[in-house]
Amino acid sequence: MKSHIVISKATIDRLPLYFRTLRHIQEEGIEIISSEELGRRIGVTPEQIRKDLASFGEFGKKGVGYFVRELIRNIGEILGLHRNWNIAIIGIGHLGWALANYKNFSSLGFNLAAIFDVDLSKVGLTINGVEVQHVNSLEEVLQQRQIHIGVITVPAEQAQKVADRLVEAGVKGIWNFAPLRINVPGHVRIISEDLSVGLSSLSYFLSRQLSD
Amino acid sequence: MKSHIVISKATIDRLPLYFRTLRHIQEEGIEIISSEELGRRIGVTPEQIRKDLASFGEFGKKGVGYFVRELIRNIGEILGLHRNWNIAIIGIGHLGWALANYKNFSSLGFNLAAIFDVDLSKVGLTINGVEVQHVNSLEEVLQQRQIHIGVITVPAEQAQKVADRLVEAGVKGIWNFAPLRINVPGHVRIISEDLSVGLSSLSYFLSRQLSD
Repeated sequence: MKSHIVISKATIDRLPLYFRTLRHIQEEGIEIISSEELGRRIGVTPEQIRKDLASFGEFGKKGVGYFVRELIRNIGEILGLHRNWNIAIIGIGHLGWALANYKNFSSLGFNLAAIFDVDLSKVGLTINGVEVQHVNSLEEVLQQRQIHIGVITVPAEQAQKVADRLVEAGVKGIWNFAPLRINVPGHVRIISEDLSVGLSSLSYFLSRQLSD
Repeated sequence: MKSHIVISKATIDRLPLYFRTLRHIQEEGIEIISSEELGRRIGVTPEQIRKDLASFGEFGKKGVGYFVRELIRNIGEILGLHRNWNIAIIGIGHLGWALANYKNFSSLGFNLAAIFDVDLSKVGLTINGVEVQHVNSLEEVLQQRQIHIGVITVPAEQAQKVADRLVEAGVKGIWNFAPLRINVPGHVRIISEDLSVGLSSLSYFLSRQLSD
């Protein structure tokens, strides 16, 4: 069983990046890749690649490289992407709408199963095959449809309240796009997307370049 | 001059997280914070915090903690957030629209200065005070308005072509939201936002929890 292998926290944090990069590599038609080239693309050393990948088995051939397809399948299994996770989006502003139409959900094993909004002019619309429901029926629908992950795209002022309702209704994962810190109990995993991080990195590099 | 301090790549990668977390802390009304509490919030050890922050000067008071406001100002300066970066968004789908209305741009020192689309029904609209222009006038407008950063929110098929035009027109930073790898010359910095990374992390933790 893959799920019993012990992998360090730092390696786990890099696995989604490996997964994404390997999928790009596969799209390019490449079947075997060296640790040097993979490291260059991900931005870590070849030694780190070999160390990370060694921790969950033998996917390579000495002197040749790693088999891209096998590596994707195995990393995908470790990440749990072969399961089917049901997702609900709460808040259909522009960002919610963009996410509801995000094409990669299904290819990653995520199933958009419910959409909620408080705005009566949006309730009843169908987005990407899913009908928008009123947030009043949140708890009922989450349980009926066995939602694993709630995606929060409501305004910041409502985000904590929505998170509390998601947790209360038994959701185990929250993907937060509201620009604030949300508190959840320890058994719930929350990932917050924060655009300021990417922007600040760009700013840092531009500052360096323009002052040279 | 702060810009001459040498800071390790790993520290730089963490600075945007420090900056974001410290701003949340400031919003909570906290003026002084210990390395323990700051580490807990960011997810690194107190030792790492002290090491990172020591590399650009003295912002703390032994046995008391770090002064939040001073730390934010100093990290902001190192990240170049005190400058004014002009941003252009290319592609007004739902995601582009959401970004055009992103409230944190100005508070981070970014100035939305131009918006482009190819769709004539969108050209001429005003979003967040900026008029949408036809992508035909991209090069001309980028130069007139001294755009530093181009934000790519066009469909994947168009993304590389748009990036090439941005680079050709002298843009030095690209913030890419199209779900593919874009190639740019070495003097241009590109940051790609990839939603699959956050989703895979959630998936990993849910898998562990549900198989326990």
